[in-house]
Amino acid sequence: MKGLVYNGPRDVRIAEVSDPRIEKETDVLVKITTTNICGSDLHMYEGRTSVEKGKVLGHENLGQVIAVGKAVERVKVGDWVCLPFNIACGFCKNCEQGMTQACLNANPGSAGAAYGYAEMGPYNGGQAELLRVPYADFNCLVLPPDAIEKQNDYVMLADIWPTGWHATELAGVKTGDSVVVYGAGPVGLLAAYSALIKGAGDVMVVDRHPDRLKLAEQIGAIPIDDTKEDPVETVMKLTKGEGADRGCECVGWQCHDHGGHEVPNDTMNKLVRSVRATGALGVVGVFMPEDPKAQDPLMKHGQIAFDFGAFFSKNLRMGSGQTPVKAYNRLLSRLIESGKAKPSFLVSHELSLEQAPDAYKHFDARENGWTKVVLKPAA
Amino acid sequence: MKGLVYNGPRDVRIAEVSDPRIEKETDVLVKITTTNICGSDLHMYEGRTSVEKGKVLGHENLGQVIAVGKAVERVKVGDWVCLPFNIACGFCKNCEQGMTQACLNANPGSAGAAYGYAEMGPYNGGQAELLRVPYADFNCLVLPPDAIEKQNDYVMLADIWPTGWHATELAGVKTGDSVVVYGAGPVGLLAAYSALIKGAGDVMVVDRHPDRLKLAEQIGAIPIDDTKEDPVETVMKLTKGEGADRGCECVGWQCHDHGGHEVPNDTMNKLVRSVRATGALGVVGVFMPEDPKAQDPLMKHGQIAFDFGAFFSKNLRMGSGQTPVKAYNRLLSRLIESGKAKPSFLVSHELSLEQAPDAYKHFDARENGWTKVVLKPAA
Amino acid sequence: MKGLVYNGPRDVRIAEVSDPRIEKETDVLVKITTTNICGSDLHMYEGRTSVEKGKVLGHENLGQVIAVGKAVERVKVGDWVCLPFNIACGFCKNCEQGMTQACLNANPGSAGAAYGYAEMGPYNGGQAELLRVPYADFNCLVLPPDAIEKQNDYVMLADIWPTGWHATELAGVKTGDSVVVYGAGPVGLLAAYSALIKGAGDVMVVDRHPDRLKLAEQIGAIPIDDTKEDPVETVMKLTKGEGADRGCECVGWQCHDHGGHEVPNDTMNKLVRSVRATGALGVVGVFMPEDPKAQDPLMKHGQIAFDFGAFFSKNLRMGSGQTPVKAYNRLLSRLIESGKAKPSFLVSHELSLEQAPDAYKHFDARENGWTKVVLKPAA
Amino acid sequence: MKGLVYNGPRDVRIAEVSDPRIEKETDVLVKITTTNICGSDLHMYEGRTSVEKGKVLGHENLGQVIAVGKAVERVKVGDWVCLPFNIACGFCKNCEQGMTQACLNANPGSAGAAYGYAEMGPYNGGQAELLRVPYADFNCLVLPPDAIEKQNDYVMLADIWPTGWHATELAGVKTGDSVVVYGAGPVGLLAAYSALIKGAGDVMVVDRHPDRLKLAEQIGAIPIDDTKEDPVETVMKLTKGEGADRGCECVGWQCHDHGGHEVPNDTMNKLVRSVRATGALGVVGVFMPEDPKAQDPLMKHGQIAFDFGAFFSKNLRMGSGQTPVKAYNRLLSRLIESGKAKPSFLVSHELSLEQAPDAYKHFDARENGWTKVVLKPAA
Repeated sequence: MKGLVYNGPRDVRIAEVSDPRIEKETDVLVKITTTNICGSDLHMYEGRTSVEKGKVLGHENLGQVIAVGKAVERVKVGDWVCLPFNIACGFCKNCEQGMTQACLNANPGSAGAAYGYAEMGPYNGGQAELLRVPYADFNCLVLPPDAIEKQNDYVMLADIWPTGWHATELAGVKTGDSVVVYGAGPVGLLAAYSALIKGAGDVMVVDRHPDRLKLAEQIGAIPIDDTKEDPVETVMKLTKGEGADRGCECVGWQCHDHGGHEVPNDTMNKLVRSVRATGALGVVGVFMPEDPKAQDPLMKHGQIAFDFGAFFSKNLRMGSGQTPVKAYNRLLSRLIESGKAKPSFLVSHELSLEQAPDAYKHFDARENGWTKVVLKPAA
Repeated sequence: MKGLVYNGPRDVRIAEVSDPRIEKETDVLVKITTTNICGSDLHMYEGRTSVEKGKVLGHENLGQVIAVGKAVERVKVGDWVCLPFNIACGFCKNCEQGMTQACLNANPGSAGAAYGYAEMGPYNGGQAELLRVPYADFNCLVLPPDAIEKQNDYVMLADIWPTGWHATELAGVKTGDSVVVYGAGPVGLLAAYSALIKGAGDVMVVDRHPDRLKLAEQIGAIPIDDTKEDPVETVMKLTKGEGADRGCECVGWQCHDHGGHEVPNDTMNKLVRSVRATGALGVVGVFMPEDPKAQDPLMKHGQIAFDFGAFFSKNLRMGSGQTPVKAYNRLLSRLIESGKAKPSFLVSHELSLEQAPDAYKHFDARENGWTKVVLKPAA
Repeated sequence: MKGLVYNGPRDVRIAEVSDPRIEKETDVLVKITTTNICGSDLHMYEGRTSVEKGKVLGHENLGQVIAVGKAVERVKVGDWVCLPFNIACGFCKNCEQGMTQACLNANPGSAGAAYGYAEMGPYNGGQAELLRVPYADFNCLVLPPDAIEKQNDYVMLADIWPTGWHATELAGVKTGDSVVVYGAGPVGLLAAYSALIKGAGDVMVVDRHPDRLKLAEQIGAIPIDDTKEDPVETVMKLTKGEGADRGCECVGWQCHDHGGHEVPNDTMNKLVRSVRATGALGVVGVFMPEDPKAQDPLMKHGQIAFDFGAFFSKNLRMGSGQTPVKAYNRLLSRLIESGKAKPSFLVSHELSLEQAPDAYKHFDARENGWTKVVLKPAA
Repeated sequence: MKGLVYNGPRDVRIAEVSDPRIEKETDVLVKITTTNICGSDLHMYEGRTSVEKGKVLGHENLGQVIAVGKAVERVKVGDWVCLPFNIACGFCKNCEQGMTQACLNANPGSAGAAYGYAEMGPYNGGQAELLRVPYADFNCLVLPPDAIEKQNDYVMLADIWPTGWHATELAGVKTGDSVVVYGAGPVGLLAAYSALIKGAGDVMVVDRHPDRLKLAEQIGAIPIDDTKEDPVETVMKLTKGEGADRGCECVGWQCHDHGGHEVPNDTMNKLVRSVRATGALGVVGVFMPEDPKAQDPLMKHGQIAFDFGAFFSKNLRMGSGQTPVKAYNRLLSRLIESGKAKPSFLVSHELSLEQAPDAYKHFDARENGWTKVVLKPAA
């Protein structure tokens, strides 16, 4: 089959790779009809990770089941399914507590596995014609009948909507809360969208890309352009000097200043200043445990210069890390099915698999208008 | 009356100060019979804060009510009371949500007030014969009849036991959890004690003072001497390579290495390494928003070099800050009353008010055996 | 001043009563500009309670402060305030845990107090020109500047919106949940409105009054007319045979069958059948601990024949009782202020105080179109 | 193999039954070394259920794995395992939320399945030499090395300790709370034991069997003999007139008065009176959705005359139903492993499988001293 493989920094290609097959009785095979390029794919694309050459990328996957292992009971050939990017066994200590992002079996020796991702196990990704799905009864979200027409909505359940939603859960967003979100990429926009669905009050989104800020405004958030105003001051003004009740970090360690230099602690310290005493932060932007290529000397060892004194004095709380997709994807799918949510508002480009290498280039450059790329391998 | 006043770095004295009086109808006056020296008093004693000269110190106070304002309804003259170190109004946005540590009225312009403390409002402390207690119906914990004999137990409800308890709440300690506590000072010991009362599994306490480690062992915790073994490795070994479920920071920014140098990020980064993926941290050791006298250049600005990449990769959560004493003091008092808890196990010295300046000296030097000093002003 | 007083079953009158005054230093006096007739006032009106003759009724009150006691610190003369119907001290064991509906001091010997209500303490109500508000710093919700124009919205914060909201909290309504609400009176409608604000999926409302069902539909809920269809069957059909995730009881013990006979267990047992296994119920419709005049023999002693076996087999949970208004009124006021909510959609009649006795008559008869009556005493 | 089969009311026999075998790739077979008779087995024994003749009973099972299906990955031949009485798939909507007591796949058409139990699916029980375990990777709790010697402790994790623990979870028992437990059978005793492990204050246990009350006292609870004192009055006296903070129902619908008549609402209504306003109840004693043989006319239809008015007026909350064993068995096993808990204190009789029919007779008669029977089929 054809798949998009990593071939080195800023070098991804469409290649012929061997077809995946049922390896365990609990596997299924899925023909991929919709798969996204994720912002975190760019970490690998840019050569900032240890991902091996030849790996098929792609962890936001949706398609139709074409084969099932003998022990698969719930999932049937012909089912339309969306696959959580976390691969989880369903029966380890962490999975049984709902923390599928830290499965202890899917990638032995580590907590957590994923499709097509650096250091997340031997699994190929879904930017390809076919995908092997392990522990399929546990991992597959079987979609309702409207899935065929709404693939661009449901595919957001593989990662970025549950990730944005998780940011608001970690931050404890409740009805009426004011919320500030740093980052208006796809995850940041869906964090804001999640907060609004939960009935939050003012939802403020900080970024500097006009196309993204415009989308923030369209969904009902307040856009803050940090090239034009100090975001902390603006948040303070909008919250009558209190600070926001809740804050979400949706940028990660590659945060840049206006001059293009990486300032890994920028968003975190601004969040600490933007959120009111007793508030809480949800951090879903990726921070690496080490990054030898980082410009910032602390970040080489996975550290940031964090305003911990202010964090403590304000009695803040913080949660971080990958989302446990299965904790949220079922409830979010209901919102799509009922027409109450339409996360495909993000999609800027719908392309063929062959166009993927070119799309990586544009998306990596954060070109204006390249918000979210959806690929259609089986089309 | 006599009170212990701050007169400059490492200089506290017993002085004649004007008697406190009922200033508002909601005040009461308390004759102080038992008051502690707290580890956080040493921050002021060492000249590391902006506390003003002439301030009476002391925020762990217990005594008998001798006068009540006209609007006081619940508290009566003659009642024995323990006073939460947080002074709180009871009716601001934060107080009404139980976050009395961040009261917006008791120290206008700031979130949170306390007796006898730097930057926590104009209130004198209780290392003195008398104390004015504002918002008395809200702030006083009226004690049961056994209070007179058990003053050394009940006084621990003013601060350190609720602080230790809060560490375990922030860390989400539940029955069966393994817990690591960094710091075996009074707060760390009471964090361990709290975890054990909650039915935690292995509770490991890291410190280097033999007297404190011995107390940890006496209450049923596992002492870890970090001068003899690497605490992270020991925790890993004791938890079968997983890491502890929960971690508590009970040291703060003045953490020292074995050579006596301050290493403000030491305990936090060791906690991140000691706690298992998906675990949580409770941070109650004090970190200052700025400390111009700090040895560490980042800490001058209230920052630490924090292992944020590891924190993120392990999906950790963290809560921090002062405890809301009122959230816990009532339930903890029941444990004392029923004989199920006896936090006075900490007390190493019971002294008169006059002996307080000398006690500060010994306690500040962390002399062996000086675990907790209780003063008896009214004796 | 003038006030509406209870004079016996189905007999309320406008009478001259003595002006309230500051009785304690913590009181304020409020000139009432907006006050509602509540469905629970009808329990007293119909003579089903022990309310004493001469009592001024009215527990949903809003107005402007005209006098403050000496110990009042936060509330100022001139402030616009909405008063929670629960009168609470703010410092008893229950209040300090946020359970102001069960204050132990405001009505000694009982848990809970209210304005103008049977067996809820000696307090007159606000269907009058003036109202005395005890523990004013704790009880007053000071309103934002838009309060004068939006009085019909903010007055709903005194009782019925927090009551409807509480139903959804007790039932654990979360985003995406399907919810069934029995009763489309003002509380039931606001329970449905609350569920929708929280992002619930299908919200189904059961009633038989066309005007109320129409309002349910207007706010986005699914109306179910139980004179035309079996509500349990309809809920099952709409939830694909599963049952609703959550259920709210907003009718109470005076539930009638189509023939007009009281069937006190009707809604509760239908809820048990309508909600899916592992679901939860929130019960805010009033059930009396005894009602000698009840038609149902069990209900005379406060009992109902409850389908407890089904409740148990389905692993259901249930919470009940009065709402703690202060737990919710601040957050709900933000939704009004920001324009995200407009609970005045309920208001069918805006009348003078003099018209109140006549309004009781129409409202008690559940006449078509009499959804919610707002009185304007100070106009 | 040999197994204990149901042959009609009060008639159980040891019979030759066909050996279980691996039916699905996800099954394992377990040689049963320890299996208990449960109080709920008596419901079937007495002919109060629809259980079919020939069914092997027994849902509290522990033993060693002797065969594994091809898709089983985690569980190995030779492992010592304890089996939750709930059979659960691990991947349905309820299981993925941790509600394994309401699995939608293990007993299609119903929510929840179990071994050897009426209306809980086609599964034979473990009062036999061998047991088939479905969905084995999800259902088996693999035991630590000390399991062989501590079988009588670990077997309590199959049902009754998680059931007792669940009662305290549903009732929201926290450190310092006062708790009343109705029923000192094995589940009631373990509910009290659980509350004590959680650090509860006074734990009061109501029963009338001297041997059971003595065990309650031995573990640190306060025994209340309802043949000698009114339990509600005693609870009130012990709680200074307030009522207990939390209440647990561990008796069920077959509750008897002193004359031996079934009074199904007796414990529930006494709980409502024994627990303080704003408290909560956990109900784990079984109530049947219908019982045509019940003496009480309401109970024939699964109803009880419930003091709902008092429940409402006191703002109570209540949770009910089967425990989700997997939510608790891992944490409880740690307490056994560390020596902090020893639930085998309950065991009064350790018998061979052949002695089981006789043991049913004694246990059903509630003979003094027959607290808990443990059978040893493989011995």
